[in-house]
Amino acid sequence: MSEDTLQTLRRQLRDFAAERAWEPFHTPKNLAMALSGEAGEVVEHFQWLTPEQSAALPPDTRQAVALELADVLLYLVRLADVLDIDLAEAAGRKLAINAERYPVERAHGRAEKYDKL
Amino acid sequence: MSEDTLQTLRRQLRDFAAERAWEPFHTPKNLAMALSGEAGEVVEHFQWLTPEQSAALPPDTRQAVALELADVLLYLVRLADVLDIDLAEAAGRKLAINAERYPVERAHGRAEKYDKL
Amino acid sequence: MSEDTLQTLRRQLRDFAAERAWEPFHTPKNLAMALSGEAGEVVEHFQWLTPEQSAALPPDTRQAVALELADVLLYLVRLADVLDIDLAEAAGRKLAINAERYPVERAHGRAEKYDKL
Amino acid sequence: MSEDTLQTLRRQLRDFAAERAWEPFHTPKNLAMALSGEAGEVVEHFQWLTPEQSAALPPDTRQAVALELADVLLYLVRLADVLDIDLAEAAGRKLAINAERYPVERAHGRAEKYDKL
Repeated sequence: MSEDTLQTLRRQLRDFAAERAWEPFHTPKNLAMALSGEAGEVVEHFQWLTPEQSAALPPDTRQAVALELADVLLYLVRLADVLDIDLAEAAGRKLAINAERYPVERAHGRAEKYDKL
Repeated sequence: MSEDTLQTLRRQLRDFAAERAWEPFHTPKNLAMALSGEAGEVVEHFQWLTPEQSAALPPDTRQAVALELADVLLYLVRLADVLDIDLAEAAGRKLAINAERYPVERAHGRAEKYDKL
Repeated sequence: MSEDTLQTLRRQLRDFAAERAWEPFHTPKNLAMALSGEAGEVVEHFQWLTPEQSAALPPDTRQAVALELADVLLYLVRLADVLDIDLAEAAGRKLAINAERYPVERAHGRAEKYDKL
Repeated sequence: MSEDTLQTLRRQLRDFAAERAWEPFHTPKNLAMALSGEAGEVVEHFQWLTPEQSAALPPDTRQAVALELADVLLYLVRLADVLDIDLAEAAGRKLAINAERYPVERAHGRAEKYDKL
């Protein structure tokens, strides 16, 4: 693929909404709610599983989870688009912040939040 | 960019976790929780705003939201990686499902769920 | 009712779990996930509604929302129970904290968080 | 206590909002978002813990979690109030539904959803 996936999805979702005249529903507030609702559906798949079970999903659950993750990505890309936020740039920036907050030697093998390290 | 953003992030996050010996914490169950926690932080920025205000964020809020969206993307990419799910493929598949569920003529200007259209 | 609702529910949920040998599933971690999943389902009912529509739900939606709120309450009470937390006491304590954080004169008609007032 | 906790909280929260002229912010939509944001904060306390660790929180974490659970309860009670939903009644009704969905003999020791039992 020559175009970046995030760019392609952004364009596709914009067209999808425009064709259906959904722009009035796609306020940042509403899309943030939809994003969080989809993240909640991801969680529901895992809530009663042990950590070990969560890493060895039966094929049908894994397929269902894949589509839930897709839902999260779609709303995330759409929300970023209506806010005119460059997701890839923000992710790169956040990775750099995390690298500073979690220096390898201090964070090694520890799950504490950076302000507790 | 020659490599796709989602692929780059996947590789970067895998390295980030490996360098810090964080793999034992990165079970799908735990990452699903982290994903949903970050989505919750996105929502908190919008909860008291009117739809109109949500579409006209002050610059500092918009910057803060950009980094929260980045957090969602980072956990989403990492979760997909540990589950060996191809996010881009799943997103394309879900878009096709949505296009069938929400035919342009029936979904025009309506926010109902597909089973209510 | 002579017994407090929160106490009654706590006892009923404890019995419900015991009869079904569900205690091993009812770790605080799992119940926190379930709680958040149910809160996500509440959000989904409201995501495409205007604020005005959200205050004038059709009867069937209102009934469905009532049962989602019930789900949140049930998991909340159960989670507090397995953590041995007194919900009523904690709520009273949090109300007092909020009264200090949001003095009437300063918070009047404003939705900002207390550290921004 | 002679008055039921849920009734007391409902009245206290209604007064709290009225004194601060917060009713315009307290639409069901906004309160649903706040509820879900608080549930997300609960999850964040547990995301990197093993199930065993989640059942043996250090005292300061347990105190912090107690106040997060209180936040969830406060928004839940307030949301039910603005929707004119009787939480205690809905919880009783949902418990009855669950008892039918999860018969003791069939649900014993199993975490599957009722439609998979």
